[in-house]
Amino acid sequence: MNKQISGLVFSPRVQYRRIATSASSTKPNKFDYDLYVKSKFKAVSISIQHALPPPFKRPETLQLHEAMRYALSQGRLMCAIVCIAACELVGGSQDDAMPGACAVEMIKTSTCVQDDLPSIDNAELRDGKPTVHCAFGIPTALFAGTALLVLGFEHLAAHYRGDTAARMVGEVSRAVGSTGLLAGQAVDMGIQNAGRAVELETLEFVHLHKTSALLEASLVIGAIAGGASDQDIEALRAYGRVTGLLYQIVDDIADATKTTEELGKVAGQDAMTGKSTYSTILGVDKSREIVGQLLVEAKERLGVFEETKALPLIHLMDHFVNWAYDRR
Amino acid sequence: MNKQISGLVFSPRVQYRRIATSASSTKPNKFDYDLYVKSKFKAVSISIQHALPPPFKRPETLQLHEAMRYALSQGRLMCAIVCIAACELVGGSQDDAMPGACAVEMIKTSTCVQDDLPSIDNAELRDGKPTVHCAFGIPTALFAGTALLVLGFEHLAAHYRGDTAARMVGEVSRAVGSTGLLAGQAVDMGIQNAGRAVELETLEFVHLHKTSALLEASLVIGAIAGGASDQDIEALRAYGRVTGLLYQIVDDIADATKTTEELGKVAGQDAMTGKSTYSTILGVDKSREIVGQLLVEAKERLGVFEETKALPLIHLMDHFVNWAYDRR
Repeated sequence: MNKQISGLVFSPRVQYRRIATSASSTKPNKFDYDLYVKSKFKAVSISIQHALPPPFKRPETLQLHEAMRYALSQGRLMCAIVCIAACELVGGSQDDAMPGACAVEMIKTSTCVQDDLPSIDNAELRDGKPTVHCAFGIPTALFAGTALLVLGFEHLAAHYRGDTAARMVGEVSRAVGSTGLLAGQAVDMGIQNAGRAVELETLEFVHLHKTSALLEASLVIGAIAGGASDQDIEALRAYGRVTGLLYQIVDDIADATKTTEELGKVAGQDAMTGKSTYSTILGVDKSREIVGQLLVEAKERLGVFEETKALPLIHLMDHFVNWAYDRR
Repeated sequence: MNKQISGLVFSPRVQYRRIATSASSTKPNKFDYDLYVKSKFKAVSISIQHALPPPFKRPETLQLHEAMRYALSQGRLMCAIVCIAACELVGGSQDDAMPGACAVEMIKTSTCVQDDLPSIDNAELRDGKPTVHCAFGIPTALFAGTALLVLGFEHLAAHYRGDTAARMVGEVSRAVGSTGLLAGQAVDMGIQNAGRAVELETLEFVHLHKTSALLEASLVIGAIAGGASDQDIEALRAYGRVTGLLYQIVDDIADATKTTEELGKVAGQDAMTGKSTYSTILGVDKSREIVGQLLVEAKERLGVFEETKALPLIHLMDHFVNWAYDRR
């Protein structure tokens, strides 16, 4: 497999290593991605627990609030972490970004709770734990999902100056609304129901809407919180768009190339169920070539920033790609 | 029945008639409630259709947007109408209130779409037409409900100045969140699952959260759009709280006293299914006494405004109460 990768016109791994090395060679041992993510994860986990309202007045609301906490505990908090990373990249602090980071994570989580429902993906496990509707029942999952979505908006309105909050509300609502994430979900559902192969263009539409849109909004909200210029905001938005797509293609490749043990779920499911993915449509090699192109593009988008400051976001792509390519 | 009503210590009908007459005697034939509601209904209907994004880019999103339009067409637009009425009452215009009115109606509709789902109320009809999930399937209903909720927030952020928008987002998110409407739904669901009689206090909690909270927010958002003082905003909030409760008690009474033909649904269902309502717990007479007290209180809350200007909101209570009491 390694031979195949290095034989590509665009070799993502090599290409990527160059990017990472060029950055880390300037400041050796300056950036530890795992430590960075771990520290942000911890900070967000604490803040987001405090951001949830306590169960109030009546015992029956206890379960609803418990379900909200449970749902949030299942996430890897990536939306929150990139939100903070974007804020720090443009000169803001973790504290500046934190309410926005909690808000995008609540909103992200609400979409996961809805996605997992029996009528949509019918998922029983998320991150190895029972999904919210399996743990709390469908009604509570519906209420908790909606409550987290609404709490995200409330949190933005409560913690930022009016004009900043309104701008953030606009960004995230467009990202998850019927011309954003929900459009992607609707098209994806259509694909699944039709049960037939789809064009690459359709697949790209789904990824850009289901995955990129909220990633973009998370970055943009962090950037707004950090007082970024319009140019910097648009650079981060473009980086998010490319990185969301890249993440999904890497995920497609992993399904085709990794073992069940490595994936933590049954490998080769996409080909087996006839699901259209980048790998099943274009093949693994061509998909890797596209990943290579996207890596170059994402790196270019971050070119407006000082490279050492952009390390968390650069390493984020590294993490995505290495997860799929390592140990092969 | 009429005799019984007039024999009450608090006679809602008589009490109410006095309220209405005292207002209309000053300005005879000055206010036509039906015409007012009809005109506002038409104006909101047009604006809300324009507020929906057109189905875009891919044909699969067509159904999602169609479901959103369909859901909105099932409402009586009462949240939107009271929002405009509140704005006009404090000196603003219909145009000032319209984006807020559309937003609260979208959010209200999203809660109805969710409520009707098989796992919650399992309703097949709303306003005599198939519910959204019956017409479009559960996945599309889930997406459309969420999309309408999100669009409501987007609409506020897009159409008001930043600080005004943020304030409105805060109001409506608190109203529908896990300590507002959703708390009411969670408690209501708990009651239904337990299948036992409940205390009046619990019932009041459900009504104040499931019904009053969003009515309050609709009024407050209209008042904010009209540039109201804090005192006026709080008066309208208190009016909304009382009126929401009043509406639900009147609805409980109607179930016990009106015919199936008059109700448009099977009469006497509450007593038959053992559902706890004001009528089944306190009896019809005592419930009417409470309605009388609430009418007085609601009227008092509007006392800070010029009476002729408050006519739409005064007549709204009239409409609720007369609907339950007329032709008896």
